[in-house]
Amino acid sequence: MIQISIPKGTRDFSPETLRKRHYIMNIIKNVFEKYAFEPLETPAMENIETLTGKYGDEGDKLMFRVLDNGEIIEHLKPKETIELETINKKEFIDEISSNPSTELKIGLSKEGDIVIENPNQSQKEFYQVLSGALDKMLGSSKQLGAAVSEKALRYDLTIPFARFVVMNRNNLVFPFRRYQMQPVWRADRPQKGRFREFYQCDADVVGSKSLILEIELLNIYREVFEKVGLKNFELRLNNRKILAGLAQLIGATDKMMDMTIAIDKLDKVGIEGVQTELQKNNFDEEQIKKIVEFLSLKGTTEERFTQLKNIFADNEEALKGVKELFFVMKQTETLCPNASLVLDLTLARGLNYYTGIIIEVKAKDVQMGSIGGGGRYDDLTGVFGLPNVSGVGISFGLDRIYEVMDELKLFPDNLQTGVQVLFINFGNEPEMYAFQQVQKLRTKDIVAELYPSNDKIKKQMEYAHRKKVPFVVLIGEEEMKTQKFQLKNMETGEQQALSLNEIIVAIEK
Amino acid sequence: MIQISIPKGTRDFSPETLRKRHYIMNIIKNVFEKYAFEPLETPAMENIETLTGKYGDEGDKLMFRVLDNGEIIEHLKPKETIELETINKKEFIDEISSNPSTELKIGLSKEGDIVIENPNQSQKEFYQVLSGALDKMLGSSKQLGAAVSEKALRYDLTIPFARFVVMNRNNLVFPFRRYQMQPVWRADRPQKGRFREFYQCDADVVGSKSLILEIELLNIYREVFEKVGLKNFELRLNNRKILAGLAQLIGATDKMMDMTIAIDKLDKVGIEGVQTELQKNNFDEEQIKKIVEFLSLKGTTEERFTQLKNIFADNEEALKGVKELFFVMKQTETLCPNASLVLDLTLARGLNYYTGIIIEVKAKDVQMGSIGGGGRYDDLTGVFGLPNVSGVGISFGLDRIYEVMDELKLFPDNLQTGVQVLFINFGNEPEMYAFQQVQKLRTKDIVAELYPSNDKIKKQMEYAHRKKVPFVVLIGEEEMKTQKFQLKNMETGEQQALSLNEIIVAIEK
Repeated sequence: MIQISIPKGTRDFSPETLRKRHYIMNIIKNVFEKYAFEPLETPAMENIETLTGKYGDEGDKLMFRVLDNGEIIEHLKPKETIELETINKKEFIDEISSNPSTELKIGLSKEGDIVIENPNQSQKEFYQVLSGALDKMLGSSKQLGAAVSEKALRYDLTIPFARFVVMNRNNLVFPFRRYQMQPVWRADRPQKGRFREFYQCDADVVGSKSLILEIELLNIYREVFEKVGLKNFELRLNNRKILAGLAQLIGATDKMMDMTIAIDKLDKVGIEGVQTELQKNNFDEEQIKKIVEFLSLKGTTEERFTQLKNIFADNEEALKGVKELFFVMKQTETLCPNASLVLDLTLARGLNYYTGIIIEVKAKDVQMGSIGGGGRYDDLTGVFGLPNVSGVGISFGLDRIYEVMDELKLFPDNLQTGVQVLFINFGNEPEMYAFQQVQKLRTKDIVAELYPSNDKIKKQMEYAHRKKVPFVVLIGEEEMKTQKFQLKNMETGEQQALSLNEIIVAIEK
Repeated sequence: MIQISIPKGTRDFSPETLRKRHYIMNIIKNVFEKYAFEPLETPAMENIETLTGKYGDEGDKLMFRVLDNGEIIEHLKPKETIELETINKKEFIDEISSNPSTELKIGLSKEGDIVIENPNQSQKEFYQVLSGALDKMLGSSKQLGAAVSEKALRYDLTIPFARFVVMNRNNLVFPFRRYQMQPVWRADRPQKGRFREFYQCDADVVGSKSLILEIELLNIYREVFEKVGLKNFELRLNNRKILAGLAQLIGATDKMMDMTIAIDKLDKVGIEGVQTELQKNNFDEEQIKKIVEFLSLKGTTEERFTQLKNIFADNEEALKGVKELFFVMKQTETLCPNASLVLDLTLARGLNYYTGIIIEVKAKDVQMGSIGGGGRYDDLTGVFGLPNVSGVGISFGLDRIYEVMDELKLFPDNLQTGVQVLFINFGNEPEMYAFQQVQKLRTKDIVAELYPSNDKIKKQMEYAHRKKVPFVVLIGEEEMKTQKFQLKNMETGEQQALSLNEIIVAIEK
């Protein structure tokens, strides 16, 4: 047997697993749609320049780059064909032709491909000339390999969404509410619960600053988690404006992101770990002390709101953040008294595009990181040249929700009933007769199946048993005559002679 | 504005398009499930050796290869790190170390990566040594680039399915019936109607030779196309055993695939084109004459079956193919007299793994290639080391079905109603009051939306209009008091003061 496998960090989803995943995804999708979000899908591949620089250095490293086969430079051939779509080919040719230190011959083929002849230079010189020209044109010192690869698999759904909004800004109706449920790819080191291909389920609204949207998104979380049967969860809230106020308060406005990233690690490394992280980033003793004090604020929600108002009495922007939080929490609780809202001033969220309220969802009866998160961003589309479009969005962590539901046994029992009734195959005339009955049941939307050949009854029964089919029908020549078929209940073992109509009633009960 | 775009041959699917695509996909999915097929999903990426060599040379060329960023060899550095998971690292190191013609130093880093030092050799020699070792180990003359890229995006759903079946052969219940609806990627030259990312919708059964399965799959085609409203279509049938018989008849058994590929082009190039193609492949005059004669067989289905029996009177295998076809067509017509079956002896299908009955679906009122196709294969899993597992499957061409339905205007009118009712936002107290009503409607599963800010009424109405919202509700302070809200029908312009319960009735009518 040949050794076969799938790429590390990826998964096949068997029918059993997939039914459970679809169960969750359908609930999320239905709630998104009820809340007037519209579906969107973007391609798996994006141009490399759409994605790079949007997720920090770490993100750039973890991107999966895609090559056409034709794009691979054949390293050892003296005559090379290169397809480079990210650059202007004519400029590239001019650039190389005008290089006095090279004897490369370069030109365009009839098909529009760049053809290079390299009569007597070494391979090393060859690449130096090429990458020198590319560096000059692309304005970077990217290695040749990176320049040749012009596409990458999407890393999240948010940047492609921003790219879509900017590309279609003249046709979209704003505020634009979209949901998107598609896989994303990250070349992370695979480990338990972390995969290289995984689904994201996002809902975002762009083109409005209204806090109604935050309230709606919190309600979506609440409704989805109630629908999947998760009773004990928390919607944790903070506001980036408050964190920005804290940075200002300690005189570290320029190091806001460093501070945020350090605070974001609190869950994993504890308060000492955060202090170490801050020291590494050159925060001084006094600054660290104030940050720790702030993160340790105690009291009821009301008490902490009062403290926040005092701390930021002179900081208009931070106060605005406090008021936003207060408004959203109060209105959400008015609408839904048991919404499980928690003011969490230690909540930071790693992504650097958030500017307003941030949200994270925690399941309480299980050991698990956040099962959802989101927030408001004021300038996501700015990187693509469309500034000042405020948006807010949330994301569901499908794999973690699946794990939580599995652990708490929240999936319905009947989810795995694929086939409702299997007809045993006795061959010859009874075979086609049974098949006709199967087709009749299918017109009634019953999931029926005829075992496809007349194997031994024992084998056919075993098939029904392993597939967890609840009913089996047996039609021999005798039953063909009487038109009363044997219906066997696979759980109780009970068997009855029934007409097809009676069988329908029995199955659907 | 920065110039932004998406990779050529890929598409964003807007809400409007996506609703239509989902409409088709849901119909297909529901029929698949009713016919007792179980869902399966495989990863977007497969190991390169799973895919190469399965689709012919053309397929290998059109594959999108995927790199981790870390896998790109940095061409110009004297010290290199390579991640090569497809090969045994130790063997690779031994192979290079034992090469007397190189001064390369090679070893494993602490992280398990291969590290190479290249003190004084030229880059060209460096690559020659590396690719020489790789060639030797991989037993092929693949270029270095290909060896370094170890993953590719899936090219269809059939080979990943075969790979899944072999990997999970001990846990699956056979016959295994699965359906799969996922995108595939091909680096084809993009043109009208041909994309580099597109969905396939497949159903296959493996582990049974029963012709009942062919009949079921034909019924799935019939039912899906009836459900989408396509009245005029043909299910065209042939059998590869008959084509094999033809090849044997003319003494060209060894050139069966060449003949099949030539015949497959009949639709595009006509009978003269097929002759030219056959000449190119060194079929002689006499052989070509016989093939053309066979392709020109005339008469009713019955008459042609009689001719086939005569032609292949001495060829057991071909006769078996004729009988299979006859049985499947007769039984299908008995079950469903208007199944639109057509015996098409010129049908060949390009894929080389088919061995039995082959199927293609043609829409008749439009100019369009086949909108679906499939067939039986007797040894698909053999390439992965599991021989003698017969299977049969069909595929729906989603993009083409979409085009046909668009042209024939088969999509339901109400498909584009996302939001059923929009509440106008008057700010202040009416705002949150209106929001409460929206939330109440949502508990009744009505897709309701509150315009998120109190923009001018005209702008809000324009928003409702552009989003094709059928109803708008207006709640000012007066309406808050009386609890009678203004419901405006956006089509008729009619306006009424109604209670929330009356509004629910009006909307759901």
